[in-house]
Amino acid sequence: MKRQTKISNAVIKRLPRYRRYLRELQKKGIDKISSSEFSDLTGYTASQIRQDLNNFGGFGQQGYGYSVSGLYNEISAILGLDKQYKMVIVGAGNLGQAIANHTYYYKTGFIVCGIFEINPRLIGMKINDIEVMDYDRIVEFVESNDIDIGVICTTKDAAQEVADKLCFAGVRGLWNFAPVDIETPTHVAVENMHISDSLHSLAYHMNRTREHEDKK
Amino acid sequence: MKRQTKISNAVIKRLPRYRRYLRELQKKGIDKISSSEFSDLTGYTASQIRQDLNNFGGFGQQGYGYSVSGLYNEISAILGLDKQYKMVIVGAGNLGQAIANHTYYYKTGFIVCGIFEINPRLIGMKINDIEVMDYDRIVEFVESNDIDIGVICTTKDAAQEVADKLCFAGVRGLWNFAPVDIETPTHVAVENMHISDSLHSLAYHMNRTREHEDKK
Repeated sequence: MKRQTKISNAVIKRLPRYRRYLRELQKKGIDKISSSEFSDLTGYTASQIRQDLNNFGGFGQQGYGYSVSGLYNEISAILGLDKQYKMVIVGAGNLGQAIANHTYYYKTGFIVCGIFEINPRLIGMKINDIEVMDYDRIVEFVESNDIDIGVICTTKDAAQEVADKLCFAGVRGLWNFAPVDIETPTHVAVENMHISDSLHSLAYHMNRTREHEDKK
Repeated sequence: MKRQTKISNAVIKRLPRYRRYLRELQKKGIDKISSSEFSDLTGYTASQIRQDLNNFGGFGQQGYGYSVSGLYNEISAILGLDKQYKMVIVGAGNLGQAIANHTYYYKTGFIVCGIFEINPRLIGMKINDIEVMDYDRIVEFVESNDIDIGVICTTKDAAQEVADKLCFAGVRGLWNFAPVDIETPTHVAVENMHISDSLHSLAYHMNRTREHEDKK
């Protein structure tokens, strides 16, 4: 059965950002924030924020604004960050190592349980106490450890095959850093981090920014 | 003077993706592609693609489709990938090293000229023959080497200060990997790679995907 209300991806992309700002407010000991203050902070209009949050029931109170901790917790729950996720990383090159280290410091519910490689020189190495294992063992490992997320840090040529194997072994989500779009069964979510696409967008905006300047 | 036509960021985000597919077609020796084939390949509707490309004049021919190399070159030029960009990376930790290595293998017009650090243990190290230098020298280096892009691979607490310094020194673009939104003068373009935001979106989609399954 399909859900009746489909929330747009643009809304979902803004939630982690709202959450980051709320976290900063929490750290500063701020308990509540008006919708216009929150708008100034995030750069989104108050009506945009209200609309986004209304998708999930809305959390502000007229004349009071938002409870910082309340909204932070609600958004965390919406995103599913009140749960734990077990991850494996495929590819122990620079990027795989960086992701292993990076997520290690999140201290949130994303736990890297194993890193897999085909390069024998890297197998056996440890990254933050996590062993780099032979890629041949991945299906067995994912199955027996109930891994939720596969992180693909391979070359683009290997990415789809790795994705297929991870899906077969039972992951529910793929976080793909390879510069290629991968296909998965509909029950497996995919989030792409296309690093070079981002750099190319930057190049575009730099040239447009310069055009503005030149015309001044 | 402002440009009359503002092309939406969503369109700009799709161009690198179109370009990637065109590059794959080129590698396979394919010269031309119909708009419906290109639609099947990319997952966007033919009308979406046509609309996107029409922003830049449109490149297809009725009854012929697209010339693969022609469109690849046009999109490259629109993105500004026919030029060279000199970059510095700030932060030589895991992420900075990964980006230095990653961009090294692009073999495109993005050249990492220097990496900067405050940690004395990392200063003097070499990554792909690029020296890790003392962060104190960054303004002088950016000025005297006409650096175009600053890549921010620091902690979130340091990111804004580093951004300010890079902008002062004269970069035209910032590629920000720190998990914080940074502010820049209007003439400096910013592209964010918020790695944890992406992971949080994935968590959301995984839970929604499971809800579908559970309701079946």
